[in-house]
Amino acid sequence: MEYRTIIRITGILVTLFSTTMLPPAIIAAIYNDGGGTAFIEAFGLSCLIGGLLWYPNRRAKEELRTREGFLIVVMFWTVLGSIGAIPFILSEMPDLSFTDAMFESFSALTTTGATVITGLEHLPKAILFYRHLLQWLGGMGIIVLAVAVLPMLGVGGMQLYRCETPGPVKDNKMTPRIAETAKALWYIYLTLTVVCATAYYFAGMNLFDAVGHAFSTIAIGGFSSYDASMGHFDSPLINAICVVFLLISSINFALHFTAFNKQGVWLKAYWHDAEVRTFIAFQLALVAIVFVILLTQSSGESTEVVLDKALFQAVSMSTTAGFTTDNFAGWPLFLPMLLVFSSFIGGCAGSTGGGIKVVRIALLFLQGVRELKRLVHPRAMFSIRLNNKAVNDRIIDAVWGFFAAYAMVFVLIMTALMGTGLDSISSFTATAASLNNLGPGLGDVAAHYGTVNDPAKWILILGMLFGRLEIFTLLVLFTPTFWRN
Amino acid sequence: MEYRTIIRITGILVTLFSTTMLPPAIIAAIYNDGGGTAFIEAFGLSCLIGGLLWYPNRRAKEELRTREGFLIVVMFWTVLGSIGAIPFILSEMPDLSFTDAMFESFSALTTTGATVITGLEHLPKAILFYRHLLQWLGGMGIIVLAVAVLPMLGVGGMQLYRCETPGPVKDNKMTPRIAETAKALWYIYLTLTVVCATAYYFAGMNLFDAVGHAFSTIAIGGFSSYDASMGHFDSPLINAICVVFLLISSINFALHFTAFNKQGVWLKAYWHDAEVRTFIAFQLALVAIVFVILLTQSSGESTEVVLDKALFQAVSMSTTAGFTTDNFAGWPLFLPMLLVFSSFIGGCAGSTGGGIKVVRIALLFLQGVRELKRLVHPRAMFSIRLNNKAVNDRIIDAVWGFFAAYAMVFVLIMTALMGTGLDSISSFTATAASLNNLGPGLGDVAAHYGTVNDPAKWILILGMLFGRLEIFTLLVLFTPTFWRN
Ligand SMILES: [K+]
Ligand SMILES: [K+]
Repeated sequence: MEYRTIIRITGILVTLFSTTMLPPAIIAAIYNDGGGTAFIEAFGLSCLIGGLLWYPNRRAKEELRTREGFLIVVMFWTVLGSIGAIPFILSEMPDLSFTDAMFESFSALTTTGATVITGLEHLPKAILFYRHLLQWLGGMGIIVLAVAVLPMLGVGGMQLYRCETPGPVKDNKMTPRIAETAKALWYIYLTLTVVCATAYYFAGMNLFDAVGHAFSTIAIGGFSSYDASMGHFDSPLINAICVVFLLISSINFALHFTAFNKQGVWLKAYWHDAEVRTFIAFQLALVAIVFVILLTQSSGESTEVVLDKALFQAVSMSTTAGFTTDNFAGWPLFLPMLLVFSSFIGGCAGSTGGGIKVVRIALLFLQGVRELKRLVHPRAMFSIRLNNKAVNDRIIDAVWGFFAAYAMVFVLIMTALMGTGLDSISSFTATAASLNNLGPGLGDVAAHYGTVNDPAKWILILGMLFGRLEIFTLLVLFTPTFWRN
Repeated sequence: MEYRTIIRITGILVTLFSTTMLPPAIIAAIYNDGGGTAFIEAFGLSCLIGGLLWYPNRRAKEELRTREGFLIVVMFWTVLGSIGAIPFILSEMPDLSFTDAMFESFSALTTTGATVITGLEHLPKAILFYRHLLQWLGGMGIIVLAVAVLPMLGVGGMQLYRCETPGPVKDNKMTPRIAETAKALWYIYLTLTVVCATAYYFAGMNLFDAVGHAFSTIAIGGFSSYDASMGHFDSPLINAICVVFLLISSINFALHFTAFNKQGVWLKAYWHDAEVRTFIAFQLALVAIVFVILLTQSSGESTEVVLDKALFQAVSMSTTAGFTTDNFAGWPLFLPMLLVFSSFIGGCAGSTGGGIKVVRIALLFLQGVRELKRLVHPRAMFSIRLNNKAVNDRIIDAVWGFFAAYAMVFVLIMTALMGTGLDSISSFTATAASLNNLGPGLGDVAAHYGTVNDPAKWILILGMLFGRLEIFTLLVLFTPTFWRN
């Protein structure tokens, strides 16, 4: 293992990341909210840490193999998550403990959006902006990870999207090198954010809220500057804008790249993609179920109000954003649990959405159907087809491996949470909310995570990391094979 | 599809099954408890139904293919489950509704052991005996199904145990024909029951209780004649006997056949089997966890008392028996949920235990490990080995298909239960308790199912059937491929 090279890269990452502290410092200066000092100090400190990591290893530039790739990805999220906590530790407003600061930082960077803070309205603008910014950067990191890095590492069937192999995204001429790919994705990501912020602004948000909420919308992060989340604005128009951009951000960014490329706009690319079609079908079905049940169960509300509620909350939960406009945990029948369950499916692969991902669920379903067919015709050959192409059995294997690991990690985290004294509902939904990078759960964690005990918070941080790193990227580090030469 | 032949076979089955009503009638006569009439009537009625099904089709003796096999298996459980409900409907003590009678019958025959009846102590002996007897017959049916029928049908990877192919059970010379196999299994099953009943009797049960509880122990059914279940006897010796026979009954009966055959006794067969080793390891780990946590959390109880509790409840739940000696739902921390979770693993394939089965969990785990190895060495070949033999990828596929179908059915049943108004915990654990053929859950279904609403009971009946028929045998009937010629 080329440790010195890995440390050098980490050092560079930390140094680059330290600049994240400057925009909030500027915001603090603009609003004169007294929140700036913490960010200036955090900037200096993270610059120093980055430099100390980089300088002794500045000449270590060994060729890196797949194995180092895993380590760098894990370092990326854990180190930046920890550095990201510095402003929360240094700030006096909010006055967070070390655990809470780490929780808030990892929750932001992994775009989980679970918060330990209440009374958001009373915080310095600098802190609020920083929370949004962390989510936005995390979202960008996820896209690069999912589109450019994981397919190369072959995690959980994502080699399906490897550029060299005939993948489901037809005519995908995406430049294979990570740097080039990242640049292209960055451009799409930035454009979407600007358009979303503009839409929010014209729908009635002030500039600060529009930019901040655009950050956490495109990242499917779910942080808000208000305890009431999107419900604060009480605007069906803003909710509708949020829904549209959540749906767009839940689609594979490689597909956006195909649809909007130098040769022109080709919107049919979306419809040609089986994952997108499945995703849209899921969303329609979920919204319909939620709408009908809310309509029949709740009385006195107009159809429009119920539709707004159902559409917003269904899309927000199933795309794993976790914004809220209503206390959905108090909704009738199985609706609260259904919404939590929908986050297991999550967004499309290569999007900022969390969960297991639509393409994996589709492959699991197709495999189930294939087995049923095989029962009736034991000697016939059935191949699993996606976008009119047979999917390699190796990829199906990898998806199953992902699913097994996911289930195992889920049970372990849930049991560990119950071991800290959390009740069953809170443990189950908090596990789902962290592994799926959703944010809100039910029970004690419906509104925020402020009342959760400290060991549970650390377990949840681990859950968020497992989720964001698609389980395997992190799990592989725990195997002897990985460390053996 | 050879419908007439299928109906003829069903008719014969029903006629044979009608004799099940006679032993309880004799019991009623012995104890003079007034419960006999219902059984005499039920005997006549089921004889008549059987005859009416058989007579018009008595000459239909077409060759049956795999497809008819599925239909007969499903008919077997649904028709006998319904016929089995007749005595409960006719009895005045207990005075059950149609739904409750069906629930109790299906719960017995599928060896789930969930009951809607309270005040068992006050019921006629005939009814109590009948409940035990139904479980015992169900258990025998499951063994034949799992050892002889499902491997032929190739359900959920169970072709692993197909006699023609090199399976994990070495030197398995079991006669391939179902009838012969069934006879051999019947002999083992009967012997185990007699030994178990004798042990219970000498440990202090009266003859009636000893026989009845031996029936529901060997079937891993979990019905008792007392509301307090095994706790009624308050005897660590009886608990220990129960644990031993539950463990024995959770092992593949084909393996018992290998260990005790005409050539002599060969106990090493158990140790040579990877599934048994994994099963025992699970049991030891579970008992240890439960014991340590109970010991540290509860005060004032002696180590022996805690060990008795932990050992009994851990084995009873994880083998999916569902007997209780204590109100385990009130145990500290995650113990109640852990015990419910343990039932997902369940017994070994080819045993009377429910759940996903140890061998499937082992294969899922090995596939997860293989994927981790493949991540580090993408070009290397790794095969999954069980009992020193490579497992065919086709079997791994089937196990995954099983798992996908299981997860899907689980979510559907749980959502449907919540739709009837059941709370989340009760819905989750009731789904697990029915699909895993466990019996008790948590929340509203911790002690019995008497307070559950009627639609939920029907959903749970479906769950028990899905569980007992290893999901696929039932699910395949819902596919168009199955009905197409
Ligand atoms: K989120
Ligand atoms: K049972």
